[in-house]
Parts: sequence; structure tokens; C-alpha cells
Amino acid sequence: MTQRVDSAHRARLDARSGALTGPTANLAPGHVQANLAILPRALAADFLHFCQRNPKPCPLLAMSEPGSPALPALGHDIDIRTDIPRYRVWRNGELVSEPTDVRDVWRDDLVSFLIGCSFSFEEAMLQDGLPVRHIEQGCNVPMYRTNIPTNPAGPFNGPLVVSMRPLKAADAIRAVQVTSRFPAVHGAPVHLGDPALIGIADIDRPDYGDAVRIRDGELPVFWACGVTPQSVVAAVKPEFCITHAPGHMLVTDLLNSRMAVL
Amino acid sequence: MTQRVDSAHRARLDARSGALTGPTANLAPGHVQANLAILPRALAADFLHFCQRNPKPCPLLAMSEPGSPALPALGHDIDIRTDIPRYRVWRNGELVSEPTDVRDVWRDDLVSFLIGCSFSFEEAMLQDGLPVRHIEQGCNVPMYRTNIPTNPAGPFNGPLVVSMRPLKAADAIRAVQVTSRFPAVHGAPVHLGDPALIGIADIDRPDYGDAVRIRDGELPVFWACGVTPQSVVAAVKPEFCITHAPGHMLVTDLLNSRMAVL
Repeated sequence: MTQRVDSAHRARLDARSGALTGPTANLAPGHVQANLAILPRALAADFLHFCQRNPKPCPLLAMSEPGSPALPALGHDIDIRTDIPRYRVWRNGELVSEPTDVRDVWRDDLVSFLIGCSFSFEEAMLQDGLPVRHIEQGCNVPMYRTNIPTNPAGPFNGPLVVSMRPLKAADAIRAVQVTSRFPAVHGAPVHLGDPALIGIADIDRPDYGDAVRIRDGELPVFWACGVTPQSVVAAVKPEFCITHAPGHMLVTDLLNSRMAVL
Repeated sequence: MTQRVDSAHRARLDARSGALTGPTANLAPGHVQANLAILPRALAADFLHFCQRNPKPCPLLAMSEPGSPALPALGHDIDIRTDIPRYRVWRNGELVSEPTDVRDVWRDDLVSFLIGCSFSFEEAMLQDGLPVRHIEQGCNVPMYRTNIPTNPAGPFNGPLVVSMRPLKAADAIRAVQVTSRFPAVHGAPVHLGDPALIGIADIDRPDYGDAVRIRDGELPVFWACGVTPQSVVAAVKPEFCITHAPGHMLVTDLLNSRMAVL
């Protein structure tokens, strides 16, 4: 236990020192990793409401106090301004920089939102012997904007973004069982089979990430994706916002196995 | 509680007296109904082994002592020779009669096997707001022989038979969750999507039961079916065998809700 918690803390300290600036996949195995959105306090209440109304794409793991870089619910000694390997800083909806540290742009009114990530349920799938194609292919998961609306809250509004993993039918059924145990990290799929039914015109041209091969006899299986809140925030064009850079997550002290409800 | 148990006992007493000779669907709502196979003791050990090796199509609820018509695990005062509305009697694999009582052909070496039935998980689906097409259409569920082999035991051997219910993808995902809770009554689906992948040539021509309509945007979803043991027994052509007539089940004192593992 001490060993595993130490690996997560070590990843955060390496990000803080600048020793780690790359993606966090496969770091601190067994630990929950999290998506980040940092917003001014004026938008925080509406964004919290948006997460509450859309728990499948926006499973909120923790929210900070305004101005505080600490997230005691996710780990000891977290400084959200330094402990992620790479950030994206946005002004009025425009990406302005991708720094490894955001102390210089920090403000006392900023609120951090940490949202569950598919790494957790993918680990459960792999441990169950289910294939995860983009991991096999060594690329990013394919993600798509759908025609499924999210439930709006204040200015936050927009389509559900989904990630896709191809599976044989029997594996898809097993994946529903396995991922249903993890509602705090996107949970069960939202769709499977015909992509056109959820507004995806071309499965080989994802809107984010990389296309993966769908083999004969496989169905595309779609999960609600943590890119949804990012795309919704981007559409609002807040005067100031910070997110993690894709794949560069917060490594928390929480254990994936503890995310299972059963 | 007393009321509900009484309704099951009442159905059995009506079958026993001859007042009930028709199908048992919708009788004693909330109660587990069961498929029946009665075999000579010489085949019982192998058939028990077959059920153990094939729990999805053959979820064994109870097995009698040789020669005994009682099934205390399924209800008080059960006499399996009289308490089912209609039987089928088979000799050397040939159907010889469809009586409402089998006391006159009873033997001291007969062993009764009671196997879970899809009525239980269909009730859970309906209570969850999921559609069950053959119930909507007022016909039998469509059933198909597949190219999926069962695990053989002694002389018992043959293909898996499945039942099919069409569902939209999101409902299919929910149905996996709902029916996974009921492993003692067939549990989660075994396949969904392309019927050809499990050896079904024409979805509109079921091998048993009636065809149902599959609407645009729906997937066929397939569950292991209690007809599997019947078709496997028929292939062995035992010198003597009794089954229930299709749709004429044993109504037990067990409650469907108690079949849920979670």
C-alpha cells in the first residue's frame, strides 16, 4: 500500500520538479488519474451544476476551494499548479500556452475540477482479459462528437463526446458488466453498434485522437468521454481557463479498485 | 408475502385438479417459473453434469430424489406428477402423449430437473421500463439453434439454443446490466448484433417460437435459452423422458426478486 501511494506521489513530484513533462499513461499503475478544468469562480457554480447533470461524461472526483491549489480528497501534498506534467492555458477560448507549471498565471478566484478518466475502466477491462485496441495499436483512443445533447447548466451546453473501443459481441457484453462497476469513471457504455444512430458519419475519422482498426465481427462500443467537459468549456470561451494537456493527467492517491461500486 | 406464496400454490393446485391446463405466463406474478426435464436415474448423473458445465442455458434450480415427486427447495406440497398444467411424454425420442398428469407413467427411478426460465428476467426488464417485443406482440419468444457448442457431458451434447429480444443500443446496454443480476435464470445475453456470427441464417425464421419485428435502430439481443437442454435430451433419445409442454411451467414459491445476486 505504501509502495503504491508512493508511486503516485513520485509522479506528482516529478511533474513538479520538471523531471516529468510527458503523458502519464502507465505511470503509477493501479492509481486513478484525472482530467483537469480550472475556471474562474464566476463560472464555477454553473460548471459544478453541469457536472451534476451529466455524470457519465463528467464524473466529478473533486473540486477545490477558490484560490487553493490543494486537493486533499485526491492525495496529500497536491499542488494543482505544478503537479500535472503539462497544462493548456486558454484566454477567451484561445489556446495561449502549454506550460509545465501555472504558478505565474494563478489567481485567487480559480476553482479546480478533477474529473474521472477512462484509464481506470480500461485497467479493469485489461485485467479481465478484454482487448483495448488503441493500447494494442499504441495510439490515442478515437473520440467523436455525437448528436446526443448534454443537459445544459448556465452557459455550459453542447454535444456528448464519446470514446470508442471495438469488441466482439460477447466481449462487449462482458465490458458492459465490467465497466458498470465504475460509475465514477464514466461507467457503462452509452451506445454500441451502428455509429450513424448517434450522429457519427465516419467511424474512420474521429474528431479527436486516432482511428483504430475494427476487425470483422467486432462492434464499435462507445463510452461517454471526459473530452465532453473540455469541448463544452471551449464553446463558452471563458475569459480565463486552464486544462491539462491531452494525456497529461493528475495522478492521484486513489486506487482504481476502490472506484468499483461492487 | 402470504398472499403471493398462496398465488403460486393456487396455480399448482389448479393444475393438479385439472382446472388449469393452459400456459402459465402471467400466473402468480413475481414468482419464479421453471422448465422441467424428468429422466431415468441411469441418465441423471450425466445430465446433472451437463447442467453444471452449461449454467447459462441450464441454470438448475432444483433436482429431486429418485422416484420422489417432491421438490421442497421450490415450494411446499409440490407433486411434480400433477402440478404442471401439461406435460410431454417421450419414448425413445418420440413424443407419445401430452397429458395433464403423469401419475400413470411414473417410475421409481425417475429424477426431476427444474431449470430457470426467462420469465424471471423478462419481469425484471419490464419493471425497468425495457420493452419485451414478443410480449408486446402477444406471441412466443423467437428461438434459434446457433453454431455455439455446449460443453458435453456423457451422451448430452449439441448446439446452444438462444432466445432473441430486439432492443435499441442503450436499452441493450441496460438489459445487460439488469439481466446480469439474474445468473440463476440465464443471466446476461450471450450475443448481440449480427445473427450470422452465431450461425443464424435468417432472423425472420426462428427454429422455435414466433418471429418478431425488429425496428429500425434496434439490435437483436440473444440470451441462452432453456430449450437447449430439451433439444439436447431429444437428441439422446432416452428410452423414457418427461418434459413440460412449451409455456406450461412449474410455478414455484420462489420470488423472482430473490434470484437477483445484487
